Amino acid sequence: MKQIFNLTIALAFSIHFGIAQTNSTTIVEDFKPSPVNQPGKEFPQVNSEGRVRTQISAPNAKYVQLDIGGVKYDLVKDENGVWTGESAPQDVGFHYYQLNIDGASVPDPGSLFFFGANRYGSGIEVPSNDQDIFALKDVPHGHVHEILFPSKSTNTARRAYVYTPPGYDKESSKRYPVLYLQHGYGENETSWPNQGRANLIMDNLIAEGKAKPFIIVMTYGMTNEIKFGGLRDFDIKPFQTVLIDELIPYIDANYRTLANQENRAMAGLSMGAFETRLITLNNPNVFSHYALFSGGIYRPDELKEHKNLKLVFLTCGSKERPDGIKNAAAELQKAGVNVASYISEGTAHEFHTWRRSLHQLAQILFK
Amino acid sequence: MKQIFNLTIALAFSIHFGIAQTNSTTIVEDFKPSPVNQPGKEFPQVNSEGRVRTQISAPNAKYVQLDIGGVKYDLVKDENGVWTGESAPQDVGFHYYQLNIDGASVPDPGSLFFFGANRYGSGIEVPSNDQDIFALKDVPHGHVHEILFPSKSTNTARRAYVYTPPGYDKESSKRYPVLYLQHGYGENETSWPNQGRANLIMDNLIAEGKAKPFIIVMTYGMTNEIKFGGLRDFDIKPFQTVLIDELIPYIDANYRTLANQENRAMAGLSMGAFETRLITLNNPNVFSHYALFSGGIYRPDELKEHKNLKLVFLTCGSKERPDGIKNAAAELQKAGVNVASYISEGTAHEFHTWRRSLHQLAQILFK
Repeated sequence: MKQIFNLTIALAFSIHFGIAQTNSTTIVEDFKPSPVNQPGKEFPQVNSEGRVRTQISAPNAKYVQLDIGGVKYDLVKDENGVWTGESAPQDVGFHYYQLNIDGASVPDPGSLFFFGANRYGSGIEVPSNDQDIFALKDVPHGHVHEILFPSKSTNTARRAYVYTPPGYDKESSKRYPVLYLQHGYGENETSWPNQGRANLIMDNLIAEGKAKPFIIVMTYGMTNEIKFGGLRDFDIKPFQTVLIDELIPYIDANYRTLANQENRAMAGLSMGAFETRLITLNNPNVFSHYALFSGGIYRPDELKEHKNLKLVFLTCGSKERPDGIKNAAAELQKAGVNVASYISEGTAHEFHTWRRSLHQLAQILFK
Repeated sequence: MKQIFNLTIALAFSIHFGIAQTNSTTIVEDFKPSPVNQPGKEFPQVNSEGRVRTQISAPNAKYVQLDIGGVKYDLVKDENGVWTGESAPQDVGFHYYQLNIDGASVPDPGSLFFFGANRYGSGIEVPSNDQDIFALKDVPHGHVHEILFPSKSTNTARRAYVYTPPGYDKESSKRYPVLYLQHGYGENETSWPNQGRANLIMDNLIAEGKAKPFIIVMTYGMTNEIKFGGLRDFDIKPFQTVLIDELIPYIDANYRTLANQENRAMAGLSMGAFETRLITLNNPNVFSHYALFSGGIYRPDELKEHKNLKLVFLTCGSKERPDGIKNAAAELQKAGVNVASYISEGTAHEFHTWRRSLHQLAQILFK
């Protein structure tokens, strides 16, 4: 398969789609509260099949639905006006969802809220056999700094999150490599530290000695205020200016970075992969490690002038287009590029694919 | 008035109450989107009277209400199934609110979400003539670090936010005083950096040369997992242990602090003031500056052993019990305590009172 991942495919990838599933007649009754519930909330819950069950009091509602993975599931009212119901089994990992109450699409007040689909809304965590990689453990923890950096090109102070590895604030002279890590379409700079759990993935890997400590910088990538569906007219220049001319200099001036190409990487998911691809190709002397999660590939001829390239890393979920990734990696390897690829088993275009992708990338970055 | 602010009054203070108001027949039509709306959302809006107007599509709902300040206001449906309506005028500043759709209490999907009333829910910002004190301006910005510090007493890693002033991460040796700043009942460690806008208040004051740069540490104060209404059984020891024995040593080990009593302050709002009062009284050698926002006073006799006390600062809103604050300050002054007080004009037991209180406190702290 020689398929080239172009903008059209990146676009298709950026739409979160679900597969309609009918409820089976038997439901395994081992539901537990989701770990990303609001404090003290019993619902939503998830069972061992990956079904999501939620509950809300709405005594005067005509109907209440659980809207997840592109499917709306009807809830049933009891004698106290409390509605309860569940979805078909979902893939492991994190999913965005909403409630629909008599036609109003609203967040479920039981869950914590996450930015995705261009809004803060509800999220659910379906247990996975590798959830340990982002668990909160008794290990030294890095810090996640919320910063406001000056941006002349957009005439404002822009927000970014900066992960510094454990001990960074204790040290006074040690310098670190930096990964610039981008979210997807409809997400924002909170998505990687919140639902992506980037900081906990790193804390755990560093504690196990599996990753070299590095800084991660996450900022908002939709600089040109593109509207829904406007990705076709996407212009990389506004964000490229913010990243290359404003954010990188701010980070190098304010953090103890190794401020050179050899120690600077860029990665992104979905639309963020598309941005990573364009920005790294436009700026062959800025980054030395390029990673695309669920959002495209590099062709060997595109990388001919990239003399200081150390690593290309391509990933996606097994429910996406894994052959495209594998074939692209084979082509790059044949052309002498140091390339690695990773397919996330059993997941689609969702955050569990990208948490795993970061977990893999971190173990080979800056080595 | 010699009234002593005791636990009962602190409890009464901790309940957010509203004054029922009837809509006037004329509404000034100069509504603008609230500055704390979700990106791109036109509603909720606020007008120059301080009325809140919101709008939501709920074609099959029987009724939709705006629930703010303890009053539920009916929205009206148009021919497209879109509901719109407004509240009576609200006080200036920040307010928590919810929507009620056919009996279901849910966040308004138009607003950003804030932790208050023991949940993440909607918030609205009513313009004030001093909103400039927490505006995002073109000045150097500090960083807000999310940290996870080890806590043996609670057997977990606990979250805190650490504000470091502009330039902190650039410097390599300068050390700073520290303010430990607590939220109120039903709020959490995100409340001061989010709705409190503590970082922007500090950035602006430092840029104007009106505040000495210092670090602010904000953590979760409801350590003993008290339930609703359980404040009567409040035991300060679990939180005191976390703060004094775990958090302060972590901060002093990981940040460039001036790690001594002279350069350490504690302040809190409402329940956080109650905690500040108890912890400072129990630990006369740890802090040198004590500030209570809308949550109690010190009696002169309580401070007799506090030899290194530099400042007591007492505040509340003019719609709370300002005489209690003024009289307590007069008593302390008579007893030779260096005391200051502040009454926030036109505000009640809400965040605008506390933003202003921090703005005042920061100008006299560590001086």
